[in-house]
Amino acid sequence: MYAIIGTWKMSLEGVWKGREMLKNCAGAGDTVTQAVMQAEDQPEFHSVGYGGLPDREGRVTLDAGFMDGDSLRVGGVISVEHIKNPILAARLLCGRETNCLLSGRGAEEFALRKGLPLCDMRTQDSMERWRQEVNGLGANFSPYEGHDTVCVLALDHGGHMAAGVSTSGLFMKEIGRVGDSPLAGCGFFCDSRYGAAAATGLGEDIMRGCLSYEAVSLMRRGASPQDACREALKGLVDRKLSLKESKGSISLIALSPRGEFGASTTLPLFPFSFGSGDHPARLYRTGWDQPVQAAREEDLKGLD
Amino acid sequence: MYAIIGTWKMSLEGVWKGREMLKNCAGAGDTVTQAVMQAEDQPEFHSVGYGGLPDREGRVTLDAGFMDGDSLRVGGVISVEHIKNPILAARLLCGRETNCLLSGRGAEEFALRKGLPLCDMRTQDSMERWRQEVNGLGANFSPYEGHDTVCVLALDHGGHMAAGVSTSGLFMKEIGRVGDSPLAGCGFFCDSRYGAAAATGLGEDIMRGCLSYEAVSLMRRGASPQDACREALKGLVDRKLSLKESKGSISLIALSPRGEFGASTTLPLFPFSFGSGDHPARLYRTGWDQPVQAAREEDLKGLD
Repeated sequence: MYAIIGTWKMSLEGVWKGREMLKNCAGAGDTVTQAVMQAEDQPEFHSVGYGGLPDREGRVTLDAGFMDGDSLRVGGVISVEHIKNPILAARLLCGRETNCLLSGRGAEEFALRKGLPLCDMRTQDSMERWRQEVNGLGANFSPYEGHDTVCVLALDHGGHMAAGVSTSGLFMKEIGRVGDSPLAGCGFFCDSRYGAAAATGLGEDIMRGCLSYEAVSLMRRGASPQDACREALKGLVDRKLSLKESKGSISLIALSPRGEFGASTTLPLFPFSFGSGDHPARLYRTGWDQPVQAAREEDLKGLD
Repeated sequence: MYAIIGTWKMSLEGVWKGREMLKNCAGAGDTVTQAVMQAEDQPEFHSVGYGGLPDREGRVTLDAGFMDGDSLRVGGVISVEHIKNPILAARLLCGRETNCLLSGRGAEEFALRKGLPLCDMRTQDSMERWRQEVNGLGANFSPYEGHDTVCVLALDHGGHMAAGVSTSGLFMKEIGRVGDSPLAGCGFFCDSRYGAAAATGLGEDIMRGCLSYEAVSLMRRGASPQDACREALKGLVDRKLSLKESKGSISLIALSPRGEFGASTTLPLFPFSFGSGDHPARLYRTGWDQPVQAAREEDLKGLD
């Protein structure tokens, strides 16, 4: 069996290509990396990689994380500005016994030493969004709405699993703000024995429940990926409601070592993509208190 | 009931003072902050705060994290060089709905705006260690041995719990290296309903098991703090051994909402301090496969 799942509509092309790779016996780590890069490289996906959402100073600072489910080893980069594919740096850092999570200049110098492509990650479009915002013209886009992370989980023929995530973080975030994405247990967790999970949404909330670890922990105790996503999310949402907070914007995906998948969200509509040995790659959708169902591209207009 | 626990011998003075504060009805958050500051301010504790262990370039870059167990809110700073008490910045960031975890310049500017004391965190002694190391004279001190974090957990009269951690991270770490300490779930986790836990040791390993979250999760399922520490650590150590790795250097402490405590370690000797309404503040010790027992200062010579 092989399977791959990714967050948001923007993961579809990567998941499609990733499924082809897995069919041709590629490893889970390579597949996840390629699928995340697919989203990083598209300037029209505004919350990830090239053309990502700028911070308050107009810098596009990116976070990425990677986890190998066999070794439980983790790699990640925080606040990088010039690495063309942050997921590649995270992948290369995974496996190091020390210094596997690097921020800022240290991460950039690591990428330079490894020969990873560097570039200016700002685009005309990302700068225009920022200029409109600082000039008080940001009409359709509230600063903290944009926080979509591409997360990809894969299971390969050999039973190996991997997780990868990449994001530019909150639009107009404060300088140096770190979200859940590069943090093991919060933005992602992967254990080839029990399953993998990853989160997208407001990172500050996701950290409060260590949601990806919690979902994998529930799968370890026998839950299906769908029940694991629902229960992990419900635990945090119930707690937020008991604190008189809104349920927030949080979405979770999960994949089991048998290739089953699950997804849960606090949003009215959360699209994701999935493909496996049994299922062609396609879009699915779920929503708050709604079941997972297959989705059509036209149902998801205006969403990344 | 009130109780407070801290890692290493260096926490004793803070735990002693913290217990007095709790006795006088101080809150868990204030108490944890003061107890961590006590260790940060002592230049003779080489792995925390003022006079901490330098990175490869001779900079003392510090990480800290704070969690409020009632709201599950988190705050943290990563790679800060000039904040006299990183735990104070982490505490102030906790409670923010967004931008609660800041790295580098953003964290320093936050501290500046909040009026926190700033200073050069290097001492003659920390620079001398670094100079000896880069000149190949670091005789008694292997670069990656120094990674002791001060972690403090407290329970106050009102049943509120809090967790705080502070560290300079690995000696001679790469530029921008982030360990487990500022990461919720890895370096610390605190939920007033179920308990609090915190970790010290090689952060790259601690992340692989999300150890603090796992320990609190076990307490949520009914484990005592001692069993939670033992089981959480055993899960990761068994996995490391199955991967032909050494068991590594990892220590965990935990505190329950009833004021019971626990500690577990892979080291031959791990000292910590504890005090509560029923017990005066004093040193304890445990070791790999050894029970927790009261310790005398003279048993712990040469240790921080």
